[in-house]
Parts: sequence; C-alpha cells; structure tokens
Amino acid sequence: MRAEYFNPFISATTEVFRTMLACELNRGQLGLKQNRSPLFEVSGMIGISGSLHGMVVVSLGRETAITATEILVGVRPEGLNSDVTDCVGEIANMIAGAAKTRLQESDLSISLPTVVCGKNHLVSFPSQSTPISLPFDSELGPICVEIGLAPSLVAC
Amino acid sequence: MRAEYFNPFISATTEVFRTMLACELNRGQLGLKQNRSPLFEVSGMIGISGSLHGMVVVSLGRETAITATEILVGVRPEGLNSDVTDCVGEIANMIAGAAKTRLQESDLSISLPTVVCGKNHLVSFPSQSTPISLPFDSELGPICVEIGLAPSLVAC
Repeated sequence: MRAEYFNPFISATTEVFRTMLACELNRGQLGLKQNRSPLFEVSGMIGISGSLHGMVVVSLGRETAITATEILVGVRPEGLNSDVTDCVGEIANMIAGAAKTRLQESDLSISLPTVVCGKNHLVSFPSQSTPISLPFDSELGPICVEIGLAPSLVAC
Repeated sequence: MRAEYFNPFISATTEVFRTMLACELNRGQLGLKQNRSPLFEVSGMIGISGSLHGMVVVSLGRETAITATEILVGVRPEGLNSDVTDCVGEIANMIAGAAKTRLQESDLSISLPTVVCGKNHLVSFPSQSTPISLPFDSELGPICVEIGLAPSLVAC
C-alpha cells in the first residue's frame, strides 16, 4: 500500500484524538498487518469506496474505549454498552472522514460504521490485499488502526 | 429500514448460495436486529456508500464456513484459515454486489470485504440506525445476514 494512502490516516487519527479526546498519540512502528493478528476487544470498522476501496479498522481495548466514551459523553459508562459502541463507531467515522479530505482522490465515500466487540477476535482482509497496521500509544492506552485500501479497477 | 432496501439482499443471498454453493436457503423470520445479539463465529463485512450508506454482515458458523469453502475451492480446509476468510469475504462481496444491481439507487459502491472471526463476537450498528436481521437455514447450517442501510443526507 502506498504511503500517500496511509499517511492521511496517521494525521487523521492524531488529529481526531487530539481535538475530540484531548489525547496526544505516540506513533509506534508501522507494519504490514499479519493477516491473523488479534485486535483489541472493541473495533470500529468503516468501509471506503470510490476510486479507492477498502476498509479501516480502529481497535481499542475495553478500558480505552470506556474512558474515551467518558470524555466524549461526560458520564462514565458501566461496561461495553451502546454508548461505547456508538462512540467507537463515531471515532472511526471521524478518522475516516478526516482522512478522506486528505486523500487526493476526490470521489471517495464512506459507509456506516459498525463496531465489533469480542475478546481475541481476528479481522482478516482479503489475502491478496496488503493491509497495514498503525499502532499508537497514549495515556488512554494502546490503540491500533488497520487499513486495507486499493485502487478500484473500475470506479464502481 | 424500507422493504425496497432489504428485499434485494434476500434475493441476492438466495441467488449467491444457489449458484455458487448449490445450496437452497430457507428464509427465517425477518427481524429488527437486537443491537447486541451475538453472531456466528465468522462474519464477512462489507460497506456500502453512495446515495445510500450502510454495512452488510454475512455471518456463518465455523462448520458452515469450512464446508462452503470446501465447495468453492474443492479442498476441505483444516480449520479457519485464510482460505476460509477469503471465501467468506468473497461470499459477502457477491451478495453485496448482487444486491447493488437490484437496488434502485444507481450510484452505490461497495468496499473491500473484511472478515471477523471470534466466538461470541457482537456487531453493533449505530444506535440511531435500524438494522435488520435476515436469518436463513440450509443444509450447510444456519446463516444470518444483517443489514444497516440509510439514505445519505448529502451524497458524499
């Protein structure tokens, strides 16, 4: 995957966490996603389509997701309830939206976010794609953004 | 969610299973998705965007996914390997693609599929959306298609 595809996601993630959660992120080592690596317990997923198509997954641990929701909503949720999944979906949505404005392709659109909860769930991208993994550390805990994005053969 | 949105997915799912897997599906009771209901162990997810935006989740049990892969690939995979996740992603892709051609909206595009594996994982759509759940039974085992789709406020 080309740097011009994933650099917008690095700055979008940093910006969303800074402006929405008052949280500075420290970037870890960017890597090719090992296709079967487990993620954290809560993953916000959003599809991207247009002249590029792909999927972005924003994954957080349970405590990180709960604390992020507390910051956004003002009340600490008791466990992984619908407030938390809504907030994680909205964080994924903001990151994808902010990255979209930074990508050169002007015809991109993003899907409705969905949120997956479950211990040790795996997210697999198609094996012919080369998704990358962007780990970040923060005072809220570690987060990981995974991106699989490819040019569409025919803009569909 | 309006019937004209989910009826295309019912016929697309039935058609994909019939033509690709030689498997007749029996439709169960369509229901509003309980936002926190657990899915089967393997879920193929694909985003839809354009004048409608949303997400489709095709969920199968482990044995169903493995047998479907055996039919598509010709060799029985040993466990939930990348062949299985590729096949489940491709099934989700074919269902979304077939539904897209049946929907009246002509500007829809679909994202890259991703596949989530994990026991008792939950998929939450945004709580303001009204996703529906389409259960099917078949000789391969039960499957479930969940769809959250809404008109875009601004076609983005």
